[in-house]
Amino acid sequence: MKKKRNALYAQSGGVTAVLNASACGVIETARRHKDTIGKVYAGRNGIIGALTEDLIDTGKEPDRAIAGLRYTPSGAFGSCRYKLKSLEENRAQYERLIEVFKAHNIGYFFYNGGGDSADTCLKVSQLSGTLGYPIQAIHIPKTVDNDLPITDCCPGFGSVAKYVAVSTREASFDVASMALTSTKVFVLEVMGRHAGWIAAAGCLAADRNNNIPIVALFPEVSFDQDKFLAMVKDNVEKSGYCTVVVSEGTRWPDGRFLAEASTKDAFGHAQLGGAAPLVATMVKDKLGYKYHWAVADYLQRSARHIASKTDVKQAYALGKAAVELALRGRNSVMAAIVRISDNPYKWKVGVADLKDVANKEKFMPMSFISEDGFGITQKCRNYLKPLIQGEDYPPYSNGLPDYITLKNKAVPKKLKGNFKI
Amino acid sequence: MKKKRNALYAQSGGVTAVLNASACGVIETARRHKDTIGKVYAGRNGIIGALTEDLIDTGKEPDRAIAGLRYTPSGAFGSCRYKLKSLEENRAQYERLIEVFKAHNIGYFFYNGGGDSADTCLKVSQLSGTLGYPIQAIHIPKTVDNDLPITDCCPGFGSVAKYVAVSTREASFDVASMALTSTKVFVLEVMGRHAGWIAAAGCLAADRNNNIPIVALFPEVSFDQDKFLAMVKDNVEKSGYCTVVVSEGTRWPDGRFLAEASTKDAFGHAQLGGAAPLVATMVKDKLGYKYHWAVADYLQRSARHIASKTDVKQAYALGKAAVELALRGRNSVMAAIVRISDNPYKWKVGVADLKDVANKEKFMPMSFISEDGFGITQKCRNYLKPLIQGEDYPPYSNGLPDYITLKNKAVPKKLKGNFKI
Repeated sequence: MKKKRNALYAQSGGVTAVLNASACGVIETARRHKDTIGKVYAGRNGIIGALTEDLIDTGKEPDRAIAGLRYTPSGAFGSCRYKLKSLEENRAQYERLIEVFKAHNIGYFFYNGGGDSADTCLKVSQLSGTLGYPIQAIHIPKTVDNDLPITDCCPGFGSVAKYVAVSTREASFDVASMALTSTKVFVLEVMGRHAGWIAAAGCLAADRNNNIPIVALFPEVSFDQDKFLAMVKDNVEKSGYCTVVVSEGTRWPDGRFLAEASTKDAFGHAQLGGAAPLVATMVKDKLGYKYHWAVADYLQRSARHIASKTDVKQAYALGKAAVELALRGRNSVMAAIVRISDNPYKWKVGVADLKDVANKEKFMPMSFISEDGFGITQKCRNYLKPLIQGEDYPPYSNGLPDYITLKNKAVPKKLKGNFKI
Repeated sequence: MKKKRNALYAQSGGVTAVLNASACGVIETARRHKDTIGKVYAGRNGIIGALTEDLIDTGKEPDRAIAGLRYTPSGAFGSCRYKLKSLEENRAQYERLIEVFKAHNIGYFFYNGGGDSADTCLKVSQLSGTLGYPIQAIHIPKTVDNDLPITDCCPGFGSVAKYVAVSTREASFDVASMALTSTKVFVLEVMGRHAGWIAAAGCLAADRNNNIPIVALFPEVSFDQDKFLAMVKDNVEKSGYCTVVVSEGTRWPDGRFLAEASTKDAFGHAQLGGAAPLVATMVKDKLGYKYHWAVADYLQRSARHIASKTDVKQAYALGKAAVELALRGRNSVMAAIVRISDNPYKWKVGVADLKDVANKEKFMPMSFISEDGFGITQKCRNYLKPLIQGEDYPPYSNGLPDYITLKNKAVPKKLKGNFKI
């Protein structure tokens, strides 16, 4: 008979509308296998909770609260931006993790994050072998940027894509009504530091019924100011108005971001914001059109109220699959989405080796970007459309979504001394 | 027997998520009274269409399309920012309107807008008396700013309020998850040039279940930088993070807007935007906290996907009531919402004299703002809560709201010569 061991689940990096749906998938599935998986702990604030032995006992939450995670955005246990150094640079961090795992009889490590955390997950699994303490480390993909390799898409992306497509359509209807005497150009800035997936989703707002004129700016395409202004002018002259969707990561030909702030985040990435006002002002200065601009920022990735049903299902399915992979003895793998067909959309859960995932970014293929560089191709549409299908509304009370806040009770510490982050 | 006359419906000023629901109320109700009201024309781009004799024949739209207006944001016939001058300054404009009305046998004028258009509506009605061409001019209130007098609330506001409350809650959950190692302060800029109603709605995001720490900045309260920073610091120290909701119209003690751009709109109002980045940078510079900021701009007022059911009902009811007032022979009036009770929320449609409405702004009463100036009182909560009640989701196809685009067929012109705007 297999020895019963506990599990640790941790959330990493920027949170999403459906990150907790993956947590729900992990915990609900683990609860159905209590013969093999004992307690499910969660790291408070992600991997930092694991390092500092600040663990949450998810067993203290009733089934109803765990079920509520399915429709609650953000990271219910806290996430963090904290990248473990390489094994050579800070072996102590990894040894500490193993020490905490040992102290709490943790045999399963479910890490829910992007490329950086896939790397951490891989290293933990490698080191546990070296140190002779067996851990099954399974990664669950999560990133609104949709930039992980192998998996067809990343949970979190479909919901941001839906939010951005819906918002772009709504704001475009607004501008169209006002254009004769007021705003002619509306600029929406969306996330996407290195990959233009989210801006591409903005292009879905237009279809044959509404003919919304959209100009998209992608990080993959170096910004050509003259061509851009000509496109905007042409749209305003033909349709009376123009909607611009700009990725925060759009760059000048010399590589600088359109709007680069001077601050950096914990991973050393430049903190961005402000491409929309820059582009809007450029349109005003060069073409004389009245503008409005919006920066969606966190609103887009937390907008659980308009989450994609497909995205919610996939986020849950990958959490569930991670536990099932663990039960089947797998290690150093990521649960992934495999697309079977576009139309009708069919998908299944597959498995990727972590060494093929860690620290790799997936950009939009050039075949997804229209020839002029300011829109998307039919191929891109075929890829994106299924991901925003279906609505999955949260319950409401008093006019507001009834999101869950967990008790997050701490597990008593077993180790002596504090670990310095 | 009463002579059958046509109606003109026109949309004015900034559009909303439910402006078309009022149009739907007007047209559907008029269609049920074909014995009295002949055709329902709409001004293309609002009053400009009336002045230039560019009228739309809504009779060319099938019932299904008109029903679709109930769930389509923006202004389906086009709106405009164009304020008629005073009667003394430009009598020709008013005479032209009467001329167009006469040419098309228009006896009912339904004007759907804010304070400026209430004033136009009043003047048209006064002049029609002077010129001996009888017009019944009825105003239908619309403004996300909720700043019209007499009516308890303005259609359009409830939906923006719901959007801002939902978004504030979602983004706050997001920041709470990230605060330990990343963003500690999230700043959301919302509309509200002179009145803080929309920012006040952001405060609804917090309740006993989530304890979200929110600091709101209202145009009604002169900005006190030191007090503000102390509030933010206190929240971050107690809760780990802080959410700031700032009205675009928040001002420094000397009266300048926090972020005043140099451009002005067609009414001569300063064009605003950028209070959020200013406040966020201030927080970073003075307190050192990492921030994120969003500017919702048009997204908030066009967000039909998360419209308040109460708001949609009221918008429709006031459109319907305007026609019924016309049928009862009323003139120079506005259909208004009368609140009967807060809890349970009960309301009915009332009537206001246009002379009591035109060019008056309703600010938030000081009793609605908490003593420290950065939040709302229970009285304000009691007022706001019913207005965001209920969801009224539009139909979706292919993952996107299936908003209606009308054919907007022009009515053949009867007058010679063009009128210069």
